[in-house]
Amino acid sequence: MQWARIVHRGRTLFGRVEGDVLAVCSGDMFAAAVPTGETVPLADATWLAPCAPGKIVALWNNFHAAAAKNGWAVPAEPLYFMKSTSALNAHLAPIPKPASFDGRVVYEGELAVVIGKACRNVGEADAAAHIFGYTCINDVTALDLLTADPSFLQWTRAKGFDGFAPIGPVIATGIDPAGLVVRTLVNGRERQNYPVSDMIFAPARLVSLISRDLTLEPGDVIACGTSLGVLPMRPGTTVEVAIDGIGTLKNVYG
Amino acid sequence: MQWARIVHRGRTLFGRVEGDVLAVCSGDMFAAAVPTGETVPLADATWLAPCAPGKIVALWNNFHAAAAKNGWAVPAEPLYFMKSTSALNAHLAPIPKPASFDGRVVYEGELAVVIGKACRNVGEADAAAHIFGYTCINDVTALDLLTADPSFLQWTRAKGFDGFAPIGPVIATGIDPAGLVVRTLVNGRERQNYPVSDMIFAPARLVSLISRDLTLEPGDVIACGTSLGVLPMRPGTTVEVAIDGIGTLKNVYG
Repeated sequence: MQWARIVHRGRTLFGRVEGDVLAVCSGDMFAAAVPTGETVPLADATWLAPCAPGKIVALWNNFHAAAAKNGWAVPAEPLYFMKSTSALNAHLAPIPKPASFDGRVVYEGELAVVIGKACRNVGEADAAAHIFGYTCINDVTALDLLTADPSFLQWTRAKGFDGFAPIGPVIATGIDPAGLVVRTLVNGRERQNYPVSDMIFAPARLVSLISRDLTLEPGDVIACGTSLGVLPMRPGTTVEVAIDGIGTLKNVYG
Repeated sequence: MQWARIVHRGRTLFGRVEGDVLAVCSGDMFAAAVPTGETVPLADATWLAPCAPGKIVALWNNFHAAAAKNGWAVPAEPLYFMKSTSALNAHLAPIPKPASFDGRVVYEGELAVVIGKACRNVGEADAAAHIFGYTCINDVTALDLLTADPSFLQWTRAKGFDGFAPIGPVIATGIDPAGLVVRTLVNGRERQNYPVSDMIFAPARLVSLISRDLTLEPGDVIACGTSLGVLPMRPGTTVEVAIDGIGTLKNVYG
């Protein structure tokens, strides 16, 4: 099933994507959502981020291929930072160029986990049952800012500008992430193409390990990290993060 | 004025602290809160964090004395990370020892700004009008975890365990932070005593500069960084962050 949130004629709606319409639901997306019977053509709607996370946890160095190419050691535990929730952005919305930074800004196409049930200290076997589904994320990063101060890597700031976390277009439920492939198209040209199976910490393991540190809540997002093929964007660059089984998240930078 | 949130006989309430009672209010703490006329004795209540921030931005290296002693360069711009909102904790609640980490955990007594109005790209002169008030925060940090992986400083994880962000007991409004002094008492013994005037980036400047990067919302918290005197806590250690004009935030570790 595919879940989306949209604005249609001034109303904020959520529901299931069925072909080219949204089958509107009431209630809570993560618990007992009920179809209202209304359908709305998606062509008339503005996409919202498919959920409103209270936290966006994001991984660094979570792919064997990227670690090998960059000479990074395979980490013993997930290495993560947070993207500001104010960075949340939607399918087809522009990614604003930061007002306070003028260096290189890169895309990072990634698979994202969406939590469905609160979890704290869950084992790996139980973790899957706490995952609601999966979406695409572009983990936009002000690359030059990351290392601008030699005393402190600015992960939070470089990743956290308004609009730097587009997710969507939908949350796909009932899929197995193990066989997915993440592709990123830049102005239509494929620049990233990597299998989820190359992850150092796969989604259920991430949920389990991160839940040992902090309580994850319904709607929270874990961006699983990116692999090879990250490049800067210029104003006007179109970036599409495409994962078969989920969909294509499309945004223009600047 | 001093604002608090409490649980009293199963009801979650907010209002103004007046001596030893809470004058209960209805509405929004940040906009047009209205006293209901009810008062509740604080002695019968359980304290909550005085607000529920959507973001907890926290500063590194924001005091001249700490920079000088540690040999850190004075930064050109604020250097910040985020504490997980799931780390939020209350006055008199225990700070849990992490299940997934066994090294040193330190307190950091700090002044925290609480945002009152949404602000994006506000100038320093306008920033003060977007600040609701000030509270105390203990920016609890799993110190050894920060540097456990040589390839990646784990600020988010080391600062983000459940319960690692006690704030309170109240938000004080209508005070000028410039003259405040932050003191931290460890098992009753003073271990930190530093003036807010030693900040590299004072509160209004922090709000202005951070709002250039990301939109701050009512209830968001900015922990202004700590100065000298940070030490590890053992299970059973009592830590009090005391700021005259705000109050004393008291928690026991472990």
